[in-house]
Amino acid sequence: MSIIKKIFSNSRSSEDGIFFDAIQKILGFKPLNLNNYRKAFTHRSMNKVDEKGNSINYERLEFLGDAMLGSVIAAHLFNEVPTGDEGYLTKMRSKIVSRDHLNELGKDLNLIKYVESKVSTQHFGENIHGNLFEALIGAIYLDRGFVYCEKFIHKKVIVPYVDIPKLEGKVISYKSLVIEWCQKEKKTFHFDVFEDNGNEGVKYFGVKLKIDNKIVARARATSKKKAEEKASQRAYFAFQEKMSPNT
Amino acid sequence: MSIIKKIFSNSRSSEDGIFFDAIQKILGFKPLNLNNYRKAFTHRSMNKVDEKGNSINYERLEFLGDAMLGSVIAAHLFNEVPTGDEGYLTKMRSKIVSRDHLNELGKDLNLIKYVESKVSTQHFGENIHGNLFEALIGAIYLDRGFVYCEKFIHKKVIVPYVDIPKLEGKVISYKSLVIEWCQKEKKTFHFDVFEDNGNEGVKYFGVKLKIDNKIVARARATSKKKAEEKASQRAYFAFQEKMSPNT
Repeated sequence: MSIIKKIFSNSRSSEDGIFFDAIQKILGFKPLNLNNYRKAFTHRSMNKVDEKGNSINYERLEFLGDAMLGSVIAAHLFNEVPTGDEGYLTKMRSKIVSRDHLNELGKDLNLIKYVESKVSTQHFGENIHGNLFEALIGAIYLDRGFVYCEKFIHKKVIVPYVDIPKLEGKVISYKSLVIEWCQKEKKTFHFDVFEDNGNEGVKYFGVKLKIDNKIVARARATSKKKAEEKASQRAYFAFQEKMSPNT
Repeated sequence: MSIIKKIFSNSRSSEDGIFFDAIQKILGFKPLNLNNYRKAFTHRSMNKVDEKGNSINYERLEFLGDAMLGSVIAAHLFNEVPTGDEGYLTKMRSKIVSRDHLNELGKDLNLIKYVESKVSTQHFGENIHGNLFEALIGAIYLDRGFVYCEKFIHKKVIVPYVDIPKLEGKVISYKSLVIEWCQKEKKTFHFDVFEDNGNEGVKYFGVKLKIDNKIVARARATSKKKAEEKASQRAYFAFQEKMSPNT
């Protein structure tokens, strides 16, 4: 009993423990040293400095994370699209690492929840989400090196978001492809959307896509539109041969 | 005797052996697979394609190498200049990876010597040197991964060329600092310059910097000016306290 009391009375380590768990959940692996992750969530309004007078906030980490993200995406595109020339690769990369896209990624991970700031988070602009996302990648690089950066980016960016045909503009919306196909095939379709917040403290929407009253795909995302699109994409890939616009 | 004959009659492996040795000398470590290095030295005028019809030349590798170079330099600056904010780091990186600087690096390694091209190398513009340098980094990444890229860039770019005070514009020329100091201290100085080609098939200059008739620094570079500057920089760092413009 006294040991438990001691643990809880030590608010510092309990706070560290909560932060550690949150970071581990976001990363999908154990952080080795929390310092850089703390920095990745420290806004300049905190006016923190280290013992040498250097500012402690996430802005320098953004620079580092942006560079690492750029090279991981470059390597992915290089390997994934052997037909793409330098111009194509450059263009595709800038679509993937666009400000809007990074903001979306940061928002989906709800990074803003962990920011230490003297300014209310409501006063931040949209870019805070992408900035935190880049800073987090910078912290991962410092903590665990390039290979872990690559793993994280693969899991959080490439697998869920990097859809090359869509980025190429060949597919505008999977939802419209699904609808067209259903109409052509005289099938009924229905997107069953519901709120699905889980324990994450951020609004999520779940969707079940039914075709002829049978669930063919499920998805979950931070907006209705995204959840529908994700479910449609899953259905599209499952039925790709039947629905491909080229066949 | 017959074994030796066999080896030499197999011109393919002898050619590979020569290329392997050249690449190993440039890299400072063993390449594992020569294919990507061959690609890094193949100009588009060769019109090479693989079995799937994809072009084989160094242009895609440039894209990859540029990204890797950018992140290695970002990490170096991040660690080396803890006082520098995001804007400073961005500016310093673009100075280091400027087209002129990359051309200089490629030229110093004499990469053009290994290019396979149907166009005479005399018809290439200046940028070929930097492009080959970037493509080589891309090939290193594919062959040996990020950590080897980092090692190579450290050895070939950071140690010999990344001089932060000079890039910041605080020091324009180490040679002029050395001369000023000698004049102030009433010391004689002399740059003893000589050609020093070694076995590398490219013109090199050696220089001995003598102060009061004593050799204080030596250097070797592809031009007289660079060799003198390098020797002056070495002397400057050796005598930094005495010669610093701030003291």
